Parts: sequence; C-alpha cells; structure tokens
Amino acid sequence: MAFRQKHLLGIEPLHPTEITTVLDVAERYVEQNRRTDKHSDALRGLTQINMFFENSTRTQSSFELAGKRLGADVMNMSMQASSIKKGETLIDTALTLNAMHPDLLVVRHPHSGAVDLLAQKVNCAVLNAGDGKHEHPTQALLDALTIRRAKGRLHRLNIAICGDIAHSRVARSNLILLGKMENRVRLVGPPTLVPQQFREFGCEIYDDMREGLQDVDVVMMLRLQKERMDGGFIPSEREYFYRYGLDGEKLGFAKPDAIVMHPGPMNRGVEIDGTIADDINRSVIQEQVEMGVAVRMAAMELLARNLRSSREATEGTMV
Amino acid sequence: MAFRQKHLLGIEPLHPTEITTVLDVAERYVEQNRRTDKHSDALRGLTQINMFFENSTRTQSSFELAGKRLGADVMNMSMQASSIKKGETLIDTALTLNAMHPDLLVVRHPHSGAVDLLAQKVNCAVLNAGDGKHEHPTQALLDALTIRRAKGRLHRLNIAICGDIAHSRVARSNLILLGKMENRVRLVGPPTLVPQQFREFGCEIYDDMREGLQDVDVVMMLRLQKERMDGGFIPSEREYFYRYGLDGEKLGFAKPDAIVMHPGPMNRGVEIDGTIADDINRSVIQEQVEMGVAVRMAAMELLARNLRSSREATEGTMV
Amino acid sequence: MAFRQKHLLGIEPLHPTEITTVLDVAERYVEQNRRTDKHSDALRGLTQINMFFENSTRTQSSFELAGKRLGADVMNMSMQASSIKKGETLIDTALTLNAMHPDLLVVRHPHSGAVDLLAQKVNCAVLNAGDGKHEHPTQALLDALTIRRAKGRLHRLNIAICGDIAHSRVARSNLILLGKMENRVRLVGPPTLVPQQFREFGCEIYDDMREGLQDVDVVMMLRLQKERMDGGFIPSEREYFYRYGLDGEKLGFAKPDAIVMHPGPMNRGVEIDGTIADDINRSVIQEQVEMGVAVRMAAMELLARNLRSSREATEGTMV
Repeated sequence: MAFRQKHLLGIEPLHPTEITTVLDVAERYVEQNRRTDKHSDALRGLTQINMFFENSTRTQSSFELAGKRLGADVMNMSMQASSIKKGETLIDTALTLNAMHPDLLVVRHPHSGAVDLLAQKVNCAVLNAGDGKHEHPTQALLDALTIRRAKGRLHRLNIAICGDIAHSRVARSNLILLGKMENRVRLVGPPTLVPQQFREFGCEIYDDMREGLQDVDVVMMLRLQKERMDGGFIPSEREYFYRYGLDGEKLGFAKPDAIVMHPGPMNRGVEIDGTIADDINRSVIQEQVEMGVAVRMAAMELLARNLRSSREATEGTMV
Repeated sequence: MAFRQKHLLGIEPLHPTEITTVLDVAERYVEQNRRTDKHSDALRGLTQINMFFENSTRTQSSFELAGKRLGADVMNMSMQASSIKKGETLIDTALTLNAMHPDLLVVRHPHSGAVDLLAQKVNCAVLNAGDGKHEHPTQALLDALTIRRAKGRLHRLNIAICGDIAHSRVARSNLILLGKMENRVRLVGPPTLVPQQFREFGCEIYDDMREGLQDVDVVMMLRLQKERMDGGFIPSEREYFYRYGLDGEKLGFAKPDAIVMHPGPMNRGVEIDGTIADDINRSVIQEQVEMGVAVRMAAMELLARNLRSSREATEGTMV
Repeated sequence: MAFRQKHLLGIEPLHPTEITTVLDVAERYVEQNRRTDKHSDALRGLTQINMFFENSTRTQSSFELAGKRLGADVMNMSMQASSIKKGETLIDTALTLNAMHPDLLVVRHPHSGAVDLLAQKVNCAVLNAGDGKHEHPTQALLDALTIRRAKGRLHRLNIAICGDIAHSRVARSNLILLGKMENRVRLVGPPTLVPQQFREFGCEIYDDMREGLQDVDVVMMLRLQKERMDGGFIPSEREYFYRYGLDGEKLGFAKPDAIVMHPGPMNRGVEIDGTIADDINRSVIQEQVEMGVAVRMAAMELLARNLRSSREATEGTMV
C-alpha cells in the first residue's frame, strides 16, 4: 500500500495506486462513521487548521468532522473576517500560521494556485479544499469512492460530466482522476460552458444532453456557478433546465442502472429535477456527502503517517 | 426512571415523569459543572452538530459547552453564512447533514415546525433549540429546574408569566410544562401581546400587573421581542416599563418569598428594573443560565442513551 | 518558582520573578509545540472561553490552539454577532458567562479597563487579550521570550519601540515589562504618535529614527493603527515610510546583531521594508508568533494551577 505524497494539492500528482490506497483506507472510515461510537485516535496530538478564504459550510464541516473524529485538535479560521482585511499578504498569513505549528492545513482559496504557493511556505501537510478553477481533489476522491461502491469498479466506465464545466474545479479534478483510472469521460454542456482545451484530457465533448448521456454508467451533474460567471453568458434558469437540466426523459438515454451524482448544493429545477435527485434507486447524492467525510479522514490519516515518518527520519539524521 | 423520547422537539410530547427524569439527571450535572474538573465522557465517540438558522450566542454556547463537557465531538454550523444562501432547501440541508452521521443534532430555526420537519428526515436525535413561536423545550426545562431548586417543589405553585407572550416560544413551552406539573399559571401583559387562545391551556389572563402578580410564588418575565413584531403594535419602552416592567412596587404584590426569572438577554429598564434583576434574594436569573447547561447535558445524555439502545436493538434484529 | 496571580490583566501587577516564571514554563511548551504529538492534559477537565469583542484572528487563534493543546474544552464566543446587539450590558454578559462556570476566560475588548471590570464579576481566571489602549500582557510576554532567546538575556538591553505608540497597548505593555526587567527603552516616532506622558516610564523619546536606533540591541516596530486614529493626524503611508519605516539604511544605525520585531499583521512598505521583515538573520517576526502560543499555554497553566489551589483551599475551609 503506497501513498507517498507530502501534500494533497490536486489529483494531478497522484499515481493510480495512490488513489486506490486513499479509497481503500476510506472504506474503513465509512464503517467507523456508521457506528454510534465513531471516534478514534489516529490524529491524536496533531493540530489541524481549516483556513477558508471562501465560504463553504459543506466542505469545511466535512473536514472539521473528519479531524475531530480522528482525535486531532481542530481549529477553523474564517479568513474573510481576518488579517486579510488588515492588508496582510497570503505569504505573511502562511508564515504566521506556520509558526503556530499546525500539522495538517486545509485550505480553500478563490485563486487557482494559491494553495500550491502556500504549501511551499509551510512545514506541514497541506490539503487543497478547492482553489479557484484549478483542483478540488477530495471532491474527486469522494466521487470516485461513491462510483466504486455503486458500480463495483472504478475503471472502464462511461461517465458523463454535465453542465457548467468551465467554472468547475470539481469537473477538472474528476476528469483527471477518472482518466487516470482508465474510464471514458464525456463532457456535456453548452459550448460557452465547456472549454475546448479540455479535449486535451482525451474526452469527447457534447452539447446535446441526449447524445451525451447515451449508454453512460454515471451521470455527474455540476452546480451552475453563477457566482463565478464574470461578464460572460448567463443562461436563464428555465432555458438551462430545458436543455441541460437532468430529468427523467434525458436520463432515459443513459444505461438503465446508471447512477446520478451532484456535488451539492443543488439548484433543484435548474440543473436537476427534484424527483431524480430524490430517487434512491438512481441518485447517490447523499452517499457522496457520506463518502466525503470518510475520504477526508483517509487522506488526513495517510498524510499524517508520512509526516510522522519524514520528521522521524529528519530527527534521526540530526542525531 | 423513564425517558422514552427519540427527540426533544417540545414539551408537548413529554410525560410528567419524563420531565422529572430530565431534572433529576440535570441535578448531577449541576454538581459536575461546579467542580474544577468538569469533563466526563458520557457522549464520548458521538458527534453533536449545532445548526443555528437564527443567531443565539447564549443558547448555542450553552449547548456547545454541554456537549464538550460530556466528551462529544461538537461542531457548530452557522447557517446564515451557508448553503442556505446558495438556494438549498431545508430538506436538502437536513439530508446532507444526515449523511455526515451526526448523533445529536441541535437546531434553532425561525419557522415554527421546521425542527419537527427536519427530525423526520434524519437518523439521529434532534433537540429543538427554539423554532419560531412554537417551542423552546430546554428553556422550559431549565426554568423548571430553577423553580424546583428555589421552591423545593414543582407543583401547586402560582406562577405569573409576564410581558410579550404573543411572540414567545419560551412562554408557550413553559405554559405547557407548568400545566403538566399541575401548577396554576397566569398570563400577564397588554391584550395585544397576550393571545386569547392561550386560555385553552387553562390559565387566567390579566392585563394589570398588580392584579396578575397578587400572591404568586414565581414571577417569570419575558423579553420584549421587538425583532419579531411585524407591523403590529410596538409599545414605547417607557410606557411599557411604566405599565408592565417589573419594579419593587409591583413585585410587592407577589408573595414575600416570590422569585424573579428572566430568560435573558434582559432589557434593563424596559421589562425589568435593574435593581430587581440584581437582587440576589429575589432574582434567580443567573441560576437559570447555570441550570441551562446542566439541563442540556441531561437531555443529551438521555437521548444518547435511547439512541444507543435503539441502534443496538436494530443491529440485533439484523444479525 | 512563584506566580501568585489570580488573573493576567496586565504586566503592571507582575513581579519580575513572575515574568521569569511564565517565560521558563513557556520554554517547555516551545519544545512541546515543535513535536508532532503536541497535545498534553494540563488543562483537561477545564473550560476555556474566548470572548472577543474585537476581531483578532491571530490572537484568538493563538489562545485557541494553546487551550486545545493543553486539553481544555475551548469555546469561542464572537461577541459582535451576539447578545451585545440585543442591548445587554457588559456586566450582564459577564454574569451570564460566569453562570456557565468557565475556568479560564480570555477577553479582548475595545475599551481600556473593560477586562478588569469583567474580572471583578466572575469566579474564574481572566486573561486580558488586549483592552483598548491599556494592556496586552501576553504580547509583551511573547516579545520578552523572543528577546531572551535571541539575546540570551532579558536585562540591560537597549530597546527601541518605534512608530504609532499613542494607539498601542502593545507598546504600553512592553514598556512596562522591559522596564521591570531593567532594560533601557527608547520610544521613536512622530511627536503626534508618541505621548509625552510615557516619559514617566523613564524612557527617552526620539523623533528621528536614525538617532533613536543608534546602538540598540532590539528594534521593535509597531503596526500603524489607522483604525484607532479618530480625527487626529493621519500620515500618508509614503511619507511615514520615508521617515519612520524600517529599511536597511536606518537599521544600519543599530548594533550589527540587533534583532527586528513586529507584532503583526505587518503593513509592508509602510512600517517596515519587506526585505528586512524576511531577513532571517535579523527578523524574529515568525518566532514571535511561535512564542505566542507557548507563552499563552504557560500563562493558562499557571493560572489554572492557582485556581485549583484556591478552590481546594476554599473547600478545605468549608469542610
């Protein structure tokens, strides 16, 4: 079992066996989280800091629960209301934080690359909880675990990622992960929301939902990121739903046992019909949330293990 | 000792012996909280989530301390700054949260009935921390414990609830609890703030403070909920104090050993004269806060006990 | 080893040996915080409440980590979003909080003296995390520890405190501490920002940076507190940097091994040149942050020790 990373900055640097390792460890935590006594001590003694430069109740909560259930000392820093306002630079913030000796640093930032930059300045393990339009690796990992559990495998599947791909780090991280695991990925959405450069990942692009969903195993819907659309085309919700919203008729083109995913929070009646979202035979949307906590526990445990080893090695050298 | 509830959604569903059980268990926690070492492990391994859709530093803090002192992994979710803004429905929020496997879910919501609705969608124990004008059961329980400790009993007392009853879930929960325990409750306040339908609870209604306080054992003042008065009559503070504010003269009509209560935060000089609030021979206002932590510890411990039993029973059946 | 305080309200009441005790205990925590397993149980069973009436991500985080690493049950109360808005007085807030039985209460407040007032109303140990222009004792202690580690001693040093002294509780607490430990302190800054009454502390005042820095061992820069300048002189940042900003040329007047300090967050290019701030041979700015956590752990441990003793003594008397 190999997971050799110092940080979890994206899916890009991960080897397929590392992805499998995270998912395998996460399976144990799925079981732990379903018990009434769901606390263990894998991170006891360590300090986890969640540093969110962008609000995200859902992702922050998932990381917070993950750390607390593993016995870490967890601290949230809401960076909107903080020193940032007093004009401090990101690097000064990183150095200040680093001086407090966190062991695990979970960061969300509105700018692509900001988390990588920060990781270069600190001595601890950094987890990217979403940076700009770049990566959101734990989301891709939780999606992967959800698919693997539903489909029994994570390779040779036909997967359609649908909707606002241009503004989505979720799409990007999923695309990379699903490619590494040798699945066939299609991007489906209005041309204005599907960047042509994504063809480089070797995926097919459709602007017709019915064609795009034809015979897929997995339908992965995305959130319409209105808050990230600056100046460009903003579709009317009604028009969008008519053409790209997932309803029973369009889903009929997918395989009969195709699963439906959404990273949440959903805009019912915009990206997805409420009936589909609630159909427990098709929708795995709640399971995605559940897998989220487990995958984050796994990622933090693995990173903490590497952190301990590398520090012990350093201390060995120093003596 | 019997407490058979799955949730604590209100006082309404509780049997008098269940109320007594909560208060008896709380007495133990009163002692624990007064020690320097005030941590125990009754909730160790469990996850408590506090989900406040309405700000309440006081109530949230009380629940947070209660859970932490019992060893739970406690997480606060401030729902103003959350997914709600992104258009997620209450039920989606509930399902998302449920997928994270909380064991105890403490919810405050501005709409009456929202907490009941939420409880139907989740697999954990739900505690109502106040929903609209409906119920605020832990407030009524902490008031009951305070009265029982001050008066030596919780039955056959004459109790006046005074002030803005129309907008008060505190009044409503207290009215139900005190009725169940066979006390005589009077409602005292301006007719516009005392709904006539409260007569159904079998209580007398007064619009004159002096008459209303005549020979009572307990004077329970309420906060003037200006923030909930939509469009209707808003009294001037001065006029209100003159007619309905508790001062020494009006309190003189109550029994000589009558106690004075207020759920806080107080508007001094509006609902209550500062001197009365600070008179340690009459006012039990600080003790109410103290009892609040103890009662919440008791309620969570009892609910957790039932949760464990019911899950063990289910697992037994499944094997 | 003697530390006889009930509270840490300021540096003013401390005896020099008490200052030395805090720093000595803090040294142990510096080591603990550098380990991967940085959790101990010195405060286990105790409740720490952080009550910040003024935002300060940095100081609050430092106290929060300090308490969590020592095993306390830690709760943050953001008092902006709280009962304060509902019109509650500071004393009512204090009494309410006290009824919840905290053991350690960390308070920041915009008004000088507010923390002292609060300490008189509660039964627990109170730590001042900054009150108005009055004191910020843990900042002075962390600065002292940083100096002692860099210079090998904390007496007979020449120390220049530079910049916006008028609005700075950091300057005030440092001035008192450094005086008690028998150092020579100079205040350097524009006359409008250096109150003449500070002469009473026996320090020299300079309005020329080059003269003020001549042969000093320590250059302590302050943050320009624009948010506290009400109505008076506000220098242009460019003019300020030209005359009072620390750059290589001005630092050349200090001793060759002089260290550079700043309490953060820095305004680069206003109070201090970025190159100087980042020069690891001169700047101890990151070390100050590190010492901050250690000093707060030490202060809380010492206060908790006294709290336990005094409570045991009281209980002994009562039996």
